[in-house]
Amino acid sequence: MLVVGSVALDTVETPFARKEEALGGAASYFSTAASLYNQVNLVAVVGSDFPREHLDFWRSRPVNLAGLQVQEGKTFRWVARYHMDMNARDTLDTQLGVYAGFHADIPEEYRRLPLLFLANIQPELQMEVLEQMPGACLTVLDTMELWIMTTRAQLTEVIKRVDILLMSEEEVRQYTGQASIVVGVRQLLTMGLKYVIVKQGSYGALLFGADGTYFSAPSYPLEEVIDPTGAGDAFAGGFLGYLSTVQPDLDGRYSIEDIKCAVVHGNIIGSFVCEDFSIGRLRTLTMDDIVTRYHALVDCSHFDPRWRNSMGMQSLAPR
Amino acid sequence: MLVVGSVALDTVETPFARKEEALGGAASYFSTAASLYNQVNLVAVVGSDFPREHLDFWRSRPVNLAGLQVQEGKTFRWVARYHMDMNARDTLDTQLGVYAGFHADIPEEYRRLPLLFLANIQPELQMEVLEQMPGACLTVLDTMELWIMTTRAQLTEVIKRVDILLMSEEEVRQYTGQASIVVGVRQLLTMGLKYVIVKQGSYGALLFGADGTYFSAPSYPLEEVIDPTGAGDAFAGGFLGYLSTVQPDLDGRYSIEDIKCAVVHGNIIGSFVCEDFSIGRLRTLTMDDIVTRYHALVDCSHFDPRWRNSMGMQSLAPR
Repeated sequence: MLVVGSVALDTVETPFARKEEALGGAASYFSTAASLYNQVNLVAVVGSDFPREHLDFWRSRPVNLAGLQVQEGKTFRWVARYHMDMNARDTLDTQLGVYAGFHADIPEEYRRLPLLFLANIQPELQMEVLEQMPGACLTVLDTMELWIMTTRAQLTEVIKRVDILLMSEEEVRQYTGQASIVVGVRQLLTMGLKYVIVKQGSYGALLFGADGTYFSAPSYPLEEVIDPTGAGDAFAGGFLGYLSTVQPDLDGRYSIEDIKCAVVHGNIIGSFVCEDFSIGRLRTLTMDDIVTRYHALVDCSHFDPRWRNSMGMQSLAPR
Repeated sequence: MLVVGSVALDTVETPFARKEEALGGAASYFSTAASLYNQVNLVAVVGSDFPREHLDFWRSRPVNLAGLQVQEGKTFRWVARYHMDMNARDTLDTQLGVYAGFHADIPEEYRRLPLLFLANIQPELQMEVLEQMPGACLTVLDTMELWIMTTRAQLTEVIKRVDILLMSEEEVRQYTGQASIVVGVRQLLTMGLKYVIVKQGSYGALLFGADGTYFSAPSYPLEEVIDPTGAGDAFAGGFLGYLSTVQPDLDGRYSIEDIKCAVVHGNIIGSFVCEDFSIGRLRTLTMDDIVTRYHALVDCSHFDPRWRNSMGMQSLAPR
């Protein structure tokens, strides 16, 4: 799979702790997460100040860095502070650095990759990437409030070209102007998307399909949230990482059961990321940890598909 | 089952509409909801101004009004306004009326009922009720921020005496002082509760058991939320209403599968209530509607309990 997006150095403050200049950026979280499942090909740019240790870490994983440009200048910086309810945060500073003049040049060897994640960058850049990847079998798009507000027309063109859109509930409301998520998502699905995945922070994620599919993936109850930064990008990494391990049908389509399962993997990886700053938890995460959490989510979300009705209420008969 | 709580006249304003002096109060929502499943015995007080039509409606259902006092004076009034995100609201006015001097006198015929819902009223009153119901097989307690802040000691005594506590996430944080719901709930469970149910508004509900059980019940995705007032009380009505139709074991205990199923019924009834002001939707709701939504929730929350892993990742083998 291929990811195009930001690699950054993040300074994050929560009500309980603070971390300076740690590895961040959507593409960093995605690549590290997805590399637990399969090879990831990363297209991004860093400045000449980017710590070599991060590159060495990715080289120790199946992360192909052939598309990672290193340019003279400063790496993208992001500074944010979380509220007591860590579903809410304020961005305090954004320094684009070398991203200011970035253009995504997709290496020839990447152009036939089947799975593409357009992480949260300018819609114009996302469109450039799409045009270089006409044969991608599944394209997934992430975005944020800034692009909805400032480059709505370009974002709309990108949405019309991809298969799956990831948005938070607030982003669905902002983009569609609908108070109801269900109505807003229906509007998005008329734009040609196959699926919309609504990220709900600590509440999990919802999957809506153009075919009428609806799936509510449970969230894993974390004892302690250290830092939710990157949970959405890691979700995408778990989602596409998992799909990269299953076979689509001959038309390149994934079954709905595989898509649901991929959403659960997204939730799992997103939950792990919150357990430490930066990609800290992903460094030590194993497939056994993922298996354990998968089965915990099965256990906590499945219930009797028939009624238990020992008093014989007539109308309670199962269909 | 028995419910003790408020019967009120509510004036509710949402960003889209306003309803004046409609039937409200926790015990009203609970009774109407639970009466879809079984007979409900209501203990509450109304003033001499209480519209007779509401009493007639309950008489048309299996709601026993022998414990409903009618006193000279005004019925309890509550006025509230919802935000654009209807998970948040402001209470604008509360007029206790005849509830100011209310004492719950449980009719003799009710005292051997197995299921008791202590709806959201003063903890002192809830304790009075508990003392009159020593043989109840399952006791469920609801409360609110006001009692956590003003009568914490009395509330604590009540919590120590009941089996199941219903709280919103915010109430768990307020009562326990813990930012983490998981840690807060664990603290609550040390007080002798069998289960804590955390209400999450439009995100569904979580069930935590003293035995380590964890269950995340999916929410039904509503196209339009007209008025979320009473959703928590209707949740309790669906929860206990359903349990009243199943047989506990010889020790009066319900199986965990029945408890999970009851939480799903709570979510279902809570979701229906949001589709109209007051108890409007519950007037027309049928058991067939409940069955349809139950199966929709099964379909949207269950996923493959095994991996689908056609590429043969070794460590992904199911347990």
